[in-house]
Amino acid sequence: IPPCDPTADDKLYHIYITTISFAIMLILVKLSRQMRVGDRQRGLLGLLSPVNFLDHTQHKGLAVAVFGVLLCKLWGLLMSPDPLPFISNTQNKPANTEPVAENWVILGVFFYPALYYPLLACGTLHNKVGYVLGSLLSWTHFAVLVWQKIDCPRTTLIHQHFSLFSSLPQIVCLAFLSFQYPLLLFKGFTVTEQNSGSEDLRSSYYKDYVQNILRKKPNKIRSGAETLNLPQRIIRAVKSYIYMPEEAFRFPLNLAISCVVSCIGLYQVGLLLISAVVPQLQRIRLGVDENVASLLAGFRIQLSPDKHEVVKIVVYYIWCVEVCYISAMTLSVLVSLVMLMRSMVLHRENLKGLYRGDIYNVYNCQRNIRPSRPALVCWMGYTSFSAAHICTGMIVQTMVFFLCLLVTVFLIIIPILYRKNLILFQMLWAMWPFWLMILLSVLFQHLVGSLCFIKKIAGTRDLDNRVNLFLLTYLMFPVNVLIGVLLGVWRLIVTALFNIVHMGRMDISLLNRNVEPFDPAYRCYAHYLKIEVSQSHPVMKAFCGMLLQSAGQEGGAAQKSRDAEEENNSCKGIQLVQKEKKHRVSSAKRARRHWQLLYTLVNNPSLVGTRKHFQHQTREGFLNGSLHQRNKEGSKKGAAVEEAEAPASR
Amino acid sequence: IPPCDPTADDKLYHIYITTISFAIMLILVKLSRQMRVGDRQRGLLGLLSPVNFLDHTQHKGLAVAVFGVLLCKLWGLLMSPDPLPFISNTQNKPANTEPVAENWVILGVFFYPALYYPLLACGTLHNKVGYVLGSLLSWTHFAVLVWQKIDCPRTTLIHQHFSLFSSLPQIVCLAFLSFQYPLLLFKGFTVTEQNSGSEDLRSSYYKDYVQNILRKKPNKIRSGAETLNLPQRIIRAVKSYIYMPEEAFRFPLNLAISCVVSCIGLYQVGLLLISAVVPQLQRIRLGVDENVASLLAGFRIQLSPDKHEVVKIVVYYIWCVEVCYISAMTLSVLVSLVMLMRSMVLHRENLKGLYRGDIYNVYNCQRNIRPSRPALVCWMGYTSFSAAHICTGMIVQTMVFFLCLLVTVFLIIIPILYRKNLILFQMLWAMWPFWLMILLSVLFQHLVGSLCFIKKIAGTRDLDNRVNLFLLTYLMFPVNVLIGVLLGVWRLIVTALFNIVHMGRMDISLLNRNVEPFDPAYRCYAHYLKIEVSQSHPVMKAFCGMLLQSAGQEGGAAQKSRDAEEENNSCKGIQLVQKEKKHRVSSAKRARRHWQLLYTLVNNPSLVGTRKHFQHQTREGFLNGSLHQRNKEGSKKGAAVEEAEAPASR
Repeated sequence: IPPCDPTADDKLYHIYITTISFAIMLILVKLSRQMRVGDRQRGLLGLLSPVNFLDHTQHKGLAVAVFGVLLCKLWGLLMSPDPLPFISNTQNKPANTEPVAENWVILGVFFYPALYYPLLACGTLHNKVGYVLGSLLSWTHFAVLVWQKIDCPRTTLIHQHFSLFSSLPQIVCLAFLSFQYPLLLFKGFTVTEQNSGSEDLRSSYYKDYVQNILRKKPNKIRSGAETLNLPQRIIRAVKSYIYMPEEAFRFPLNLAISCVVSCIGLYQVGLLLISAVVPQLQRIRLGVDENVASLLAGFRIQLSPDKHEVVKIVVYYIWCVEVCYISAMTLSVLVSLVMLMRSMVLHRENLKGLYRGDIYNVYNCQRNIRPSRPALVCWMGYTSFSAAHICTGMIVQTMVFFLCLLVTVFLIIIPILYRKNLILFQMLWAMWPFWLMILLSVLFQHLVGSLCFIKKIAGTRDLDNRVNLFLLTYLMFPVNVLIGVLLGVWRLIVTALFNIVHMGRMDISLLNRNVEPFDPAYRCYAHYLKIEVSQSHPVMKAFCGMLLQSAGQEGGAAQKSRDAEEENNSCKGIQLVQKEKKHRVSSAKRARRHWQLLYTLVNNPSLVGTRKHFQHQTREGFLNGSLHQRNKEGSKKGAAVEEAEAPASR
Repeated sequence: IPPCDPTADDKLYHIYITTISFAIMLILVKLSRQMRVGDRQRGLLGLLSPVNFLDHTQHKGLAVAVFGVLLCKLWGLLMSPDPLPFISNTQNKPANTEPVAENWVILGVFFYPALYYPLLACGTLHNKVGYVLGSLLSWTHFAVLVWQKIDCPRTTLIHQHFSLFSSLPQIVCLAFLSFQYPLLLFKGFTVTEQNSGSEDLRSSYYKDYVQNILRKKPNKIRSGAETLNLPQRIIRAVKSYIYMPEEAFRFPLNLAISCVVSCIGLYQVGLLLISAVVPQLQRIRLGVDENVASLLAGFRIQLSPDKHEVVKIVVYYIWCVEVCYISAMTLSVLVSLVMLMRSMVLHRENLKGLYRGDIYNVYNCQRNIRPSRPALVCWMGYTSFSAAHICTGMIVQTMVFFLCLLVTVFLIIIPILYRKNLILFQMLWAMWPFWLMILLSVLFQHLVGSLCFIKKIAGTRDLDNRVNLFLLTYLMFPVNVLIGVLLGVWRLIVTALFNIVHMGRMDISLLNRNVEPFDPAYRCYAHYLKIEVSQSHPVMKAFCGMLLQSAGQEGGAAQKSRDAEEENNSCKGIQLVQKEKKHRVSSAKRARRHWQLLYTLVNNPSLVGTRKHFQHQTREGFLNGSLHQRNKEGSKKGAAVEEAEAPASR
């Protein structure tokens, strides 16, 4: 492969694009300050958090695409010998390139998120200028990348086309962004005002969700004691592996990101596994000549007296190894994808269960669903951890499946096809009396167990004929020891296979149920769920949204100017409390509110202390406390509503 | 080793002892027929079931010792090239010895339980003649075995002393039997009548158990919300691995047998692993000479320029391997023993939980505790399966620990001691910026998580500063992917180690809690528990015992002759029902009984059908039905009693 320098030099491109991104960020900051005066919802704070990970209603495309691009960049950083092109070229000392390159990886890990930050930030202002800048930036990224790849499709890294294929997901993500920003710009001309503000709480999603769970009640009448036959069970098991979108349930953004990122990770690892091994095997296969016969003879292996025959056999065997490897890789990718889908299904079940308050079923123990330090750390890392786990799992799976396939092919399939080297079969055949004895004793015990020792009287079952049962137990002891050894080997296989297949899934523990928290991945997932549920319970959000709406209707135009100086909070309960104080409410409404307050306090005694505590504080503190209390009230009520419907839907 | 023929020839010994055993069985049958006239409890049926596996009160020594002898014999059968000495010697054809020997193993598997059967049966009649016969038989077995071993302590099998050491547990078990039978004989002279009859139900154990659980109520007042600090938790964890006998709880016989048999199995497997490998390694170590240097040079490995030095190093390395192997084996035996003890503790907890009716906690799902075909098969095989599993587990553990120790010694300890070949440390050292980055980012996230993003207000915790949290989550994404890979590797290690360490335990599942029944060993254990609990619930047995007692007091001497023709049943409710019919009871008692019946039927509606159903049947059927009902009543009441105390003890 001839060395190739792309016209769009990587070094220059990085320097320019960094400058451009920086400039765009400055423009955005300027813009946000201007907008802050007009629109109190957005502003610099909005610019600082372009992704609201706890918002179920926002458009997920932008965030997902940027995270995809980031993962591809990280992968490129780890694979490439030249991690940060714009720095290592200037310090090109051959002696200490290695450690320096490594250290640049560390810099790159923090540099690339910052570089792609403007791509996300442009969308947060919901402003035409932002969309235009976003379009321009994503077009630039996309165009330069495609240009570079067209210029130099082949590199010396691992395999000539590795670099090209490896950047495909990145190109797709950037293409999505370059398409999405103009689309947003176009939409922005038609619907301008509707999207601004706290669209999360104002959106109809949470209300729909609550309505949906309330509506479903009369429809679902399932008999709990229904017994399924085998085909129905199998169909149900298969269905539980297929993710079907459900009405009135949206995935958290974190999950959507982790799914896409996991898929990209699988693609990249699969590509690496294929391009690092298969071409080497092919080269070896093509390079086999008659020397191989003498080489094998040196190890006292004689495949055939004819040397041509030996070459043929060796080539055939290497081809078999190649096929095994590719099949193992494909199998492990498929398994990982199925597991990904299954974990989405399970995740939805877990979330809905926790929304209902079904903590015991999800965690297998009683836990406090509220934020804590480890929960927060796990929540922050969840997206990345799940991608990393699925990739690690895939590598392990590929290795194990490869070994299993090799054993199968060389000990079972090839011997059967060519009727030679039937070592395994000969061994098994020589032991036929043993297998027959095992089989007969198992059958005998089952038969005798059902026919002689179980007595059915009027629907109840009891032991019968105990004397003979004890005698049989004693006599069968040595045979059962032999059966036990086989059972132990079977257990080893089943356990190992199950755990290897589920290695990449964080949502189930690979350990026994009593020590589940010792599985680091499951522990992380459990903590992640805590934050997700405690912060984005849809019923609580629906309640907050309704409070806001009623506040908007009651307050009307009078409070518009007054509220301008208020802080931007994700939940706007404060406004309501203020309004409650300032505007006169009718006595009927006040009575109803008092009643509601009483009801809440009776049901949540822990809140009483909070109330008294806040009466001694400043007005500011009181407001925060009330907001807090309102939220609590909302979530508790929501839980009550969901609990009421829980028995019906179960 | 010179070939050695013991004076007590194995062939003759087997033929004689078989004949003697057969004769003893005939005498016992004759005896039991005679006794049957006098004592209706025992007889031929008792002789047919020498072990009552469902009786918690009987003396466990005899059964345990005989099972131990059986396992040793089975092991000898599998190890020895000459499984059944009295047959293979006669058909000594060199051409087809191999397959014939294998088939004799199968015969032996069924022959030995029958051979040792009289050793058990002699104890069941509770008769002096039986004890005398038992003493004679066990003395014969013991004397001949010891004589043979003294005659020929060294054999050619595996290692010269393997055969001697391998028969040690058998000698111990036989010695126990030869001591126990005379002891029983001696005791039999002093207390004759007390032991006969249904001592299981008449024993005070079950009553003590019930009294104990009823008494404990006021003593145990535990606060459920107690929080333990770390040392207390560690102490509690360590305590949960040590089996301390508890007052008012006796192990089922099955468990006692499986424990002893598991220990013997561990000893035998350990002995095999040591004697098959260590002498070979020692021989290799002693055989190392200077040729090894040139051999290694052929593989391009140069340990030292001096040949003497090379020999020294190679000998030292082989010695290291030997030490690793022995340590791995010792470690795995110790781990297995600890696991055995832990599973005894857990088993007691499970049994007590099921007695209380705590089905959900034990099985993690609702199950019917009643006998079924698979449950019966699993119950029959449980003792053997647990022994086989612990041995299989130990072999796997030894291999894994050996590999781990080898890696530790040759990659970590030796390099540190001799300050050379520090490959691993050099690799780790070269990556220090990477490790530093990972460490710092983890620390940073934890610090920031607790300091900036969690707000504590009046005992409640909530998220704070969301904007920065989202920003940080985005920026940390690539670093977290790297942390996730490390976490994945850690998960792999933790999971594999846990599962390998717990491989030999049947009482916990190695799979995830949702698919626990797919673990064959755990499934078997769960089924085993079903039978054990449904058939030997101590409260039910206490109730039956009390019924029997009251029957004995009421009926007095009048019914003694009438009941002689009744069938021998494990539970004697039939007698009571008959007596209820035949003897006049006072009206107060009758009223009380009617009330109890009503109460039972109200609480157990399923029994109503059973009653009506049986009224149309014959008197025999009716009696059986009533017995059944009584049992049910007993168990349900027992469950009610236990459930009442459950909240207090939890």
